[in-house]
Amino acid sequence: MIEIIHKDLLARISRFRTKTGIVETPTFIPVVHPTRVLIPPRRMFDDFNCETIITNAYLLSKTEQEGSIHEILDYPGTIMTDSGAYQLLVYGDVKTTPLQIIQFQEKIESDIAVILDVPTGGNAAYNEAQETVEETIRRARDSINHRTKPNILWVGPIQGGTFTDLVEKCAKEINKLDFSIFAIGSPTQLMEQYQFDKLVDLVLTAKSNIPTNKPVHLFGAGHPLIFPLIVAMGCDMFDSAAYALFAKHDRILSSEGTFKLEEIKDDFCFCPTCSQFTVSEIKQLEKKDRIQVLAEHNLRICQQEIIRIKAAIREGRLWRLVESRLSSHPTLVDAMKKFTSYHKLFEKFSPVTKKKAIFITSQWSLSQPEIIRHKTRMTNYTPPKPKRKTLLFISAPKTRPYHSAKTFQRFKIQFELVSSRNLSLFDSLFLSQYFGLVPLELTDFYPLAQNEPPKMNLVKDQNPLIEQISQYVTRNRQYHKFYAIFDSTENWFNFSQRCKRVFKKLEKELTIFHTDFSLKSLKNTITKLTTSLDLK
Amino acid sequence: MIEIIHKDLLARISRFRTKTGIVETPTFIPVVHPTRVLIPPRRMFDDFNCETIITNAYLLSKTEQEGSIHEILDYPGTIMTDSGAYQLLVYGDVKTTPLQIIQFQEKIESDIAVILDVPTGGNAAYNEAQETVEETIRRARDSINHRTKPNILWVGPIQGGTFTDLVEKCAKEINKLDFSIFAIGSPTQLMEQYQFDKLVDLVLTAKSNIPTNKPVHLFGAGHPLIFPLIVAMGCDMFDSAAYALFAKHDRILSSEGTFKLEEIKDDFCFCPTCSQFTVSEIKQLEKKDRIQVLAEHNLRICQQEIIRIKAAIREGRLWRLVESRLSSHPTLVDAMKKFTSYHKLFEKFSPVTKKKAIFITSQWSLSQPEIIRHKTRMTNYTPPKPKRKTLLFISAPKTRPYHSAKTFQRFKIQFELVSSRNLSLFDSLFLSQYFGLVPLELTDFYPLAQNEPPKMNLVKDQNPLIEQISQYVTRNRQYHKFYAIFDSTENWFNFSQRCKRVFKKLEKELTIFHTDFSLKSLKNTITKLTTSLDLK
Repeated sequence: MIEIIHKDLLARISRFRTKTGIVETPTFIPVVHPTRVLIPPRRMFDDFNCETIITNAYLLSKTEQEGSIHEILDYPGTIMTDSGAYQLLVYGDVKTTPLQIIQFQEKIESDIAVILDVPTGGNAAYNEAQETVEETIRRARDSINHRTKPNILWVGPIQGGTFTDLVEKCAKEINKLDFSIFAIGSPTQLMEQYQFDKLVDLVLTAKSNIPTNKPVHLFGAGHPLIFPLIVAMGCDMFDSAAYALFAKHDRILSSEGTFKLEEIKDDFCFCPTCSQFTVSEIKQLEKKDRIQVLAEHNLRICQQEIIRIKAAIREGRLWRLVESRLSSHPTLVDAMKKFTSYHKLFEKFSPVTKKKAIFITSQWSLSQPEIIRHKTRMTNYTPPKPKRKTLLFISAPKTRPYHSAKTFQRFKIQFELVSSRNLSLFDSLFLSQYFGLVPLELTDFYPLAQNEPPKMNLVKDQNPLIEQISQYVTRNRQYHKFYAIFDSTENWFNFSQRCKRVFKKLEKELTIFHTDFSLKSLKNTITKLTTSLDLK
Repeated sequence: MIEIIHKDLLARISRFRTKTGIVETPTFIPVVHPTRVLIPPRRMFDDFNCETIITNAYLLSKTEQEGSIHEILDYPGTIMTDSGAYQLLVYGDVKTTPLQIIQFQEKIESDIAVILDVPTGGNAAYNEAQETVEETIRRARDSINHRTKPNILWVGPIQGGTFTDLVEKCAKEINKLDFSIFAIGSPTQLMEQYQFDKLVDLVLTAKSNIPTNKPVHLFGAGHPLIFPLIVAMGCDMFDSAAYALFAKHDRILSSEGTFKLEEIKDDFCFCPTCSQFTVSEIKQLEKKDRIQVLAEHNLRICQQEIIRIKAAIREGRLWRLVESRLSSHPTLVDAMKKFTSYHKLFEKFSPVTKKKAIFITSQWSLSQPEIIRHKTRMTNYTPPKPKRKTLLFISAPKTRPYHSAKTFQRFKIQFELVSSRNLSLFDSLFLSQYFGLVPLELTDFYPLAQNEPPKMNLVKDQNPLIEQISQYVTRNRQYHKFYAIFDSTENWFNFSQRCKRVFKKLEKELTIFHTDFSLKSLKNTITKLTTSLDLK
């Protein structure tokens, strides 16, 4: 159903066909009011690169308008129509029936149409939420029988709000039915209340329970600041009226947040709309014209953020963009934390290699799929030469790939000189604060050589690394002897104390050497090592 | 000498006068080659909002050009001229003398002129660096006697590179001399090597040793990604040719990093230059034209970032911008760490109240001047009613201001009901993970009520808070009784164990109650508290 061109995390650049044209995802779909038009749809198509818009079929059905929706709106692209479900959420009631709204959307020849589901909203109690889910499923089932036009793509809504068990149930039931597009319902209240962490639960629970071969729509997600998050979670399309609503309150959208027009002093933007005015001219415009200008600006900013996101997906650096955007507001930090808790899901779908190095810039970076993947791999890794009886731990060098780092090369050469043997005598395992265990034979693999950490150490908790060592040693029973060559810094001295305790518990013997990897110190260390190894 | 209009951190929006006009800081000063012009200076002034440019007096002196620098470059704004020192750094030698270059800059009527100092560079050994500093100071002293035109603003260069003692010495010596502008020398190599943490040391050491009444220039700082950092450190002006140099290598600057033209697929920018072309048209331009287009784009991006920074200074949210920008690359994270280590310096100069709440989004946020200031204040705080003998610690509520949080209000009302007394019986001190000790009587003060933390707890290390409690109790000897009412969460249970140990050491008695702040639990707690206080 969709053709996937690029993937990163759960995001995809993909294409699907509607009866009017091709939709390329991820795509931001601006809401157009069916009768009170702010930016004419034709201009959206021609000047704003909007290939899809959404309007409200329910509101339109209350007017006298005749003809197809493309004629009514004068728009040549794909038109999605909403069903009035949002009005149901906000006003509690709508004057239509599920059947009427299906028939009306068929009549006006929508390209993408939505059944009249029952939005859960962000503040519903459990039993209320349960009712909305059950009624939504009932209406979804029922809707299948009433369709008469096969060229319309019907959207199956997933409700449940903040109750993940209900979201899961709804997603599974909707998935059994014949819908072309999934839509995740009613996050608007969550977003208005800055509950972005709950939004993450909602979207990723839904995504976990539906297949990847159909587009996924998110209703009402309008701030460009969260576009990277939404797309990274696998939402291919999302609609919003925020570009216009914010404009009505003299609010300017940017990928860094929202600004009040009154606070702006300098000409802040050179988009084609803004560059026609100075900022004081914009401030002096009549209310109606000012809304128009700000709405145009806001829409362009939304579209520009989509371009940035697509570039990030193509280049495999979407995680960086999400991390960077979500670092900018406290409530988004909570969302980032929640986002990283789904690291297994991201690992499952994210591509295995990428063009670019991964960045390590915060604790969140450590949940990147590439790091999770390596750590998972190591939980059942067995070395290629299973006959080696000796295991050598080495504190990871500061440069990558580890095997060609100056300190390791010096160790290798000195070992060969002193012992007249080479490192194939034993298995070597680097210990990295970020990647955990890194076998010498894997040091070239992505991303073990292709990552950029800061000089400072972001990891303070040594427990996970200790635990990984313990598990590895317990599982790989071929080893009889264990050695460690650790940096002679305070951190590694502390670490070696903890290692000793673990090996004592495991009833195995570990001999630890500390060195500053200078030639003199290394010679000394290696002499002791070769003596202990009985090589001389 | 400068008129300061707004301040935030060490940044200031300020104005100073040159013989040609007024310079408003912070300002990015594009480098214009004196003979091979890429973007004509007149266009820079008219279309790019560049009110100041810099060109190279040394290179110009090697040509046959006649007339004033304003005539030669056809530029009506302020012109700064560099002395050839950069060429000295790169090529090791220049064919001029300090005196000749002073005389030449006077002849061409520069507005802002630089003496021929000796740049230290980023890779110099200590003794080399020392020589550059001594020679720079010598030449600076000597230059004073050779000036004949008083309307030129002369720049006193501060060298020393990565050696902070030399930077300090140079800054102090230059400060003794009659210069109108300070300039911090030769960070280019540091930046090329991504050693932004060393750049922070260089700039902030210089800044710590010069007064605030003159503009400070930073030589060669061209990537918009670090503009917020540079400005936050108090650099009022900085020049760079990066906009042109990156263009020559088909590199596109953005506030999120550098992109290669070849990797760009979509029309990425709507600046007046880019919007004349599609991205494939730009790719197909002749090399010369392409450089022109990309240089124009890059220059506009630099100017736009300055506008963003000025808005952030005006609204008191520069810290947020710095934190956000520096979170985007591992080497910038190291710079952020270094930046926060100068928290006392920022505290000293940053305004006391601001329009906006401070954000807490990472460990770095905790070094913001507002938080440091409160913590410092608490180290010698004495409560307004020194006669109270009882001190009550309360775990800080989740909403602000603390005194009007639901949980605290419930406690207050129940206490009054149960004890028939009110809270003025004792001093109340909230314990906050981010702000440390917060006396009830200060809970409305900026930023104790005006801060936005995430729901998650970013602080794992409880030692500082324990230490603050210990010091406070030791210092305020009036108290005989200590009580604590802590949240009944695991964290606070752990914390109470540690509190008990501290009080035992101090040989004072602390009674701790845990409550979930529900009505029932509070009644119970308060009954015990009032009994213990002997109120019944």
